[in-house]
Amino acid sequence: MKTIVDTIYSGSLLTGEKFPIPDSVSDKDNLDKFVAKHEGKKIVVVQGLGFVGSIMSLIVANTEKENYTVIGIDLPNEDSYWKICSINKGEFPIVSADESIQTGFKSVNEKGNLYATYDPYAYSLADIVIVDVSLDVAKEYDEKNELSDYEVLIGPFKDAITTISINCKVDALIIVETTIPPGTCEKIIKPILDEAFQRRGIKPSYKLGYAYERVTPGENYLNSVINQYRVYAGVDEASAKAIETFLETIINTEDYPLTLLHSTTAAEIAKVLENSYRAANIAFIQEWTEYAEEAKVNLYEILDAIRMRPTHDNIMQPGLGVGGYCLPKDPLIADWARKDIFQSNEELSVSRRAVEINDKMSNYAFDLINRHHLGDLSGKYILLLGVSYIGNVADTRNTPVEALYDSLVDSGCKITIHDPYVTFWNERELDIENSLEACFENKFDIIVFCVKHSFYVDHRLLNSLVLAQKDLYILDTIGMMQEEMIDQFKKKHRVSIIGRGDI
Amino acid sequence: MKTIVDTIYSGSLLTGEKFPIPDSVSDKDNLDKFVAKHEGKKIVVVQGLGFVGSIMSLIVANTEKENYTVIGIDLPNEDSYWKICSINKGEFPIVSADESIQTGFKSVNEKGNLYATYDPYAYSLADIVIVDVSLDVAKEYDEKNELSDYEVLIGPFKDAITTISINCKVDALIIVETTIPPGTCEKIIKPILDEAFQRRGIKPSYKLGYAYERVTPGENYLNSVINQYRVYAGVDEASAKAIETFLETIINTEDYPLTLLHSTTAAEIAKVLENSYRAANIAFIQEWTEYAEEAKVNLYEILDAIRMRPTHDNIMQPGLGVGGYCLPKDPLIADWARKDIFQSNEELSVSRRAVEINDKMSNYAFDLINRHHLGDLSGKYILLLGVSYIGNVADTRNTPVEALYDSLVDSGCKITIHDPYVTFWNERELDIENSLEACFENKFDIIVFCVKHSFYVDHRLLNSLVLAQKDLYILDTIGMMQEEMIDQFKKKHRVSIIGRGDI
Repeated sequence: MKTIVDTIYSGSLLTGEKFPIPDSVSDKDNLDKFVAKHEGKKIVVVQGLGFVGSIMSLIVANTEKENYTVIGIDLPNEDSYWKICSINKGEFPIVSADESIQTGFKSVNEKGNLYATYDPYAYSLADIVIVDVSLDVAKEYDEKNELSDYEVLIGPFKDAITTISINCKVDALIIVETTIPPGTCEKIIKPILDEAFQRRGIKPSYKLGYAYERVTPGENYLNSVINQYRVYAGVDEASAKAIETFLETIINTEDYPLTLLHSTTAAEIAKVLENSYRAANIAFIQEWTEYAEEAKVNLYEILDAIRMRPTHDNIMQPGLGVGGYCLPKDPLIADWARKDIFQSNEELSVSRRAVEINDKMSNYAFDLINRHHLGDLSGKYILLLGVSYIGNVADTRNTPVEALYDSLVDSGCKITIHDPYVTFWNERELDIENSLEACFENKFDIIVFCVKHSFYVDHRLLNSLVLAQKDLYILDTIGMMQEEMIDQFKKKHRVSIIGRGDI
Repeated sequence: MKTIVDTIYSGSLLTGEKFPIPDSVSDKDNLDKFVAKHEGKKIVVVQGLGFVGSIMSLIVANTEKENYTVIGIDLPNEDSYWKICSINKGEFPIVSADESIQTGFKSVNEKGNLYATYDPYAYSLADIVIVDVSLDVAKEYDEKNELSDYEVLIGPFKDAITTISINCKVDALIIVETTIPPGTCEKIIKPILDEAFQRRGIKPSYKLGYAYERVTPGENYLNSVINQYRVYAGVDEASAKAIETFLETIINTEDYPLTLLHSTTAAEIAKVLENSYRAANIAFIQEWTEYAEEAKVNLYEILDAIRMRPTHDNIMQPGLGVGGYCLPKDPLIADWARKDIFQSNEELSVSRRAVEINDKMSNYAFDLINRHHLGDLSGKYILLLGVSYIGNVADTRNTPVEALYDSLVDSGCKITIHDPYVTFWNERELDIENSLEACFENKFDIIVFCVKHSFYVDHRLLNSLVLAQKDLYILDTIGMMQEEMIDQFKKKHRVSIIGRGDI
C-alpha cells in the first residue's frame, strides 16, 4: 500500500516564503562537497539555529583567530526548516536592529564558510559540536490565571544529545550553551554519550562541557556574545582546557576574561541563578508597583531615589510583564532540577514564586483597563504600542503583550498593534503595523504603551497623532511617557501610568 | 495611704553602672539653665537616644554650618534612662569601632552643647524636633519556628508624637527619621498634631516631614550619616523647604545631593522599600545556598562569576542570618501599612516571605551542626566566633546568633562566645569573651564562625589555636575561611561551610 503524503511547508518568519520540507533526509553529498572545499579547517557544527545558534554560527564562521568552517544544523520541520534554507540563501534568519549582523553575515557568505543542513551526518564531520537547541518548559495555569504546575520538556533535549552521540567523532569536543537544568552535563548528557559509545564499541575520548552565553537580542546582539564575560566548566580538566581554547578564538577574552568553575553543575547553576535573580527582582517590584498606586505615590521617583545608593543601583522598574526565552522559565528549570536531579525535598520557593507573580503581571494591566471602562470593553477600539518582549528588539517570544492581547480579544475589543521592529507576530500569526500614520487612520478608545522602544520616546508625530484623537483612555505600562507628554495628554484624555498613583 | 516604691535602676550597657530612675519627672530648672547658656542658638531636641538619635545629637551639636544647641530626650525607664546619664557624664552611649565618634563627642562636651533629659518640657523649648524613637514589630512563630503572625507596635510611637504635640512650639519643625509605616506622617502624625493644637486652642503653623537616614553602625558610623544620600519630603512645601535647610547644615549635601520626593508617603515607602529589597535578596540567596550544598558545588565561586556582570554585582552571599534593627522588621511594617493604612486587600507577599525565610536561616546552621553529631549535642563544648548582627560592629540587636545560641542551649551544649567588639550581650545578659587566648584555654568539640568580623580573617593566632585542638567539627556560616585555612583545618578536623557543597 502506498501512502500519499501532502507536502509540508516551513514558512520563513523573515519573508513569509514557504519552503517544502524534503522527504529524504540525506544531505551527505552537499556536506561532503562543503567540507572538501574547506579542507584543513576545523569543522564546527552548531546544533540549533535559533537566537543563539544563528549568531554563534556567524561568529565562529567569521573569526580570524582560528580556521573554522561551520555547519549549522536544525530539524526539518515546520518551525525550523526555513532557517536552514534562509542561511543557505544568504539571509540571516533573525530580524535584528543590530546592523553589524548584516555586515558580519555578508562576510560569512563571501567566504562561503557556513552551510546549513538537517542531516545528522554533519555530526560525523565535526571537530567541535556546539549545542544551542531549545529546552522548554510547559506551564499550566488554573482558572485564576495562576501558575499551577509546570513540566520541564527534557525529552527533545535528550533526543538532540542522542543524535550527536550516535554520530559524533570519538574525540569530538561538545560544548553545551543551552540553558539546562543543573546537573544535566554530568547526570544526563555524559551517560547518553557513554552508552552510545559503548554500543558503537568505541572507547570514547570526547570532551564535554558547559559554557553559557549572555546574549541580548537587539542593537547589541553580536556584541553581547563577543564582548561579554563567559562562565564555563568541563566534565574533566581536558574538557575545560579545550573549551577555553575554543572560546579564546571567538570571544574578546582579553577584555572579558573567562571564568572557569569547578564543575559543569556549578556553571549550569550560575546560568539559572543569574536569571532567577533578575526574575525575583522583577517580581519584588511588581508588588510595590501595586502598593505605590494604592498609596497614590510615584514609584518611579522613589526608585530613582533608591538607585542613588550603589548597593541598590540595579533595582527594577514597573512594567507590563516579563518575556523572552529565559526569565519566564529558568527559575522553574532550576526548581525542577533541585527536586528531580538532586532529589531535594525542598523547592526554590522564592524563584518559583517570582515566575508566578511575573506571569500574572499583564493581568494587572488588563484589569486596570477593564476597571476604567466599568468592565465593558466590548467593541472598544484599542491600539497597542509595541509587541516585542522588551524594548528595541523584534523578538516576541513569550512577550507579556500576549496575555494582555488575549484578554482584550476575549473582552470583545477591536485591536490594532503597532511595533517599529516586528512585522509579523509569529505566536499569534498576526501582521503588525510598522507605520504610526497608518495606525492612526483609525479612531481609538484606548491606547496602551506596552514596550519601551526608544522609538516612542519624545516622538513628535506620535504626540500629535494622540492629541488629534478624542476621549482616549491612555495606559502607560512601562513608564514611557515623559512629564511634558503626560501634562499634554492629561488635558485632553484620561491617563493612567502603572506604578504612578500620583497621576 | 502611702505606697512604698522600690527604687528602679537603669543599667549602662557601656559600663554596667546602675542609675536610679528619678521619681519626680521635672528637669525644668536644668533645662532652663542649659538654654540660657546657649541664648541665640536654635534649639534642636532629638527624641530617642538610640543608634540614630545619639549620633544625630552629636552631629547637630557639632556642626559649624549653623548655631544649634541640642537637647537629647529619652524615657526615664530601665532600658533608656542610663543613656541620659551617660551623655550628661560625657560618655557616648553606643560602643562603636568608629574612632571619630569619640573625637566628635569630646568636642561636643568641650562646647557643652548637648544636654540629655527625660522631661517633655524640653519640647516646649525646641525650634526643631527630630524624631528618632523606635517603632518595633512583635513577631509570633509557630512550633516549626516559622513566622506565623506579627504586630506593628504603633502605640508607643503614637505616644511619643502625642507628647511632642502637647508640648511643642506652635511653629516647630518636626522631622521624623524613625522608620515608620508608609502613610504615617499624613494619616497618623498630622492628625495627632492637629487635634492637640485644636485642644490647646492654637492655630498651628508647625512644619512636618520625613527624612530618613541610612546609618550603618561600625567603623563608618558617623560618616554614614554625614556622607550619604538623603531622601526627604514634607507634608507641604514650606515643611519640605525647612527640612532641606536643616539637612544642608548637618549633611555633606554638596557631594551627596538631597532627593526631595513629592509626598511624605513616598519618602516613607522609599525607606521600607530599600530595606525590603535587601531582605528579599538575602532570602533569595538562602534557597540557592541550600541548593548548592545539595548539588555539591561552591556557591561562592558561582556568585563571584555572576558578580562580574555590572547588572548583578550586588547579589548577596550566604550567611548565618539577618539581624539588626531594620531588615527583620521593615518589610512587615510595609506590609502592615498596605493593609491597615491603605486598606489594600493584597499583601506584600514577596517581602513578607523574605522575612519568614531570613528568620529561619540560623535554624539551617543549627540543623547542620546537629546532623553532624547525629542529633546528640548534649554536653558538647562549642565556641561561637562572633555575636553581633553583622561584621565589624558591636551591635547585637536581633543578631541571628541569638536563635542559634538558643537552639544550642536547648540541646544541652556548653557554649563559649567570643567577639572582638561585644563585651556584654544585652539581649541574653551574657558576658562575652574578647580574648581568643582566654577562650582557647578550653577544649572544644565544635567551633562556629558566626560573624564576618575582619578580625578573624587570616588571624594567625586563631589559626594556630584551632590547629592545636583535637577532633573538632568546624562550621563556617559566613564564608570566613580562606582556601589555605580550609586546607589546613581539613587535615585535622571535620569542616563544613554553608553554601559550599564541594567541601
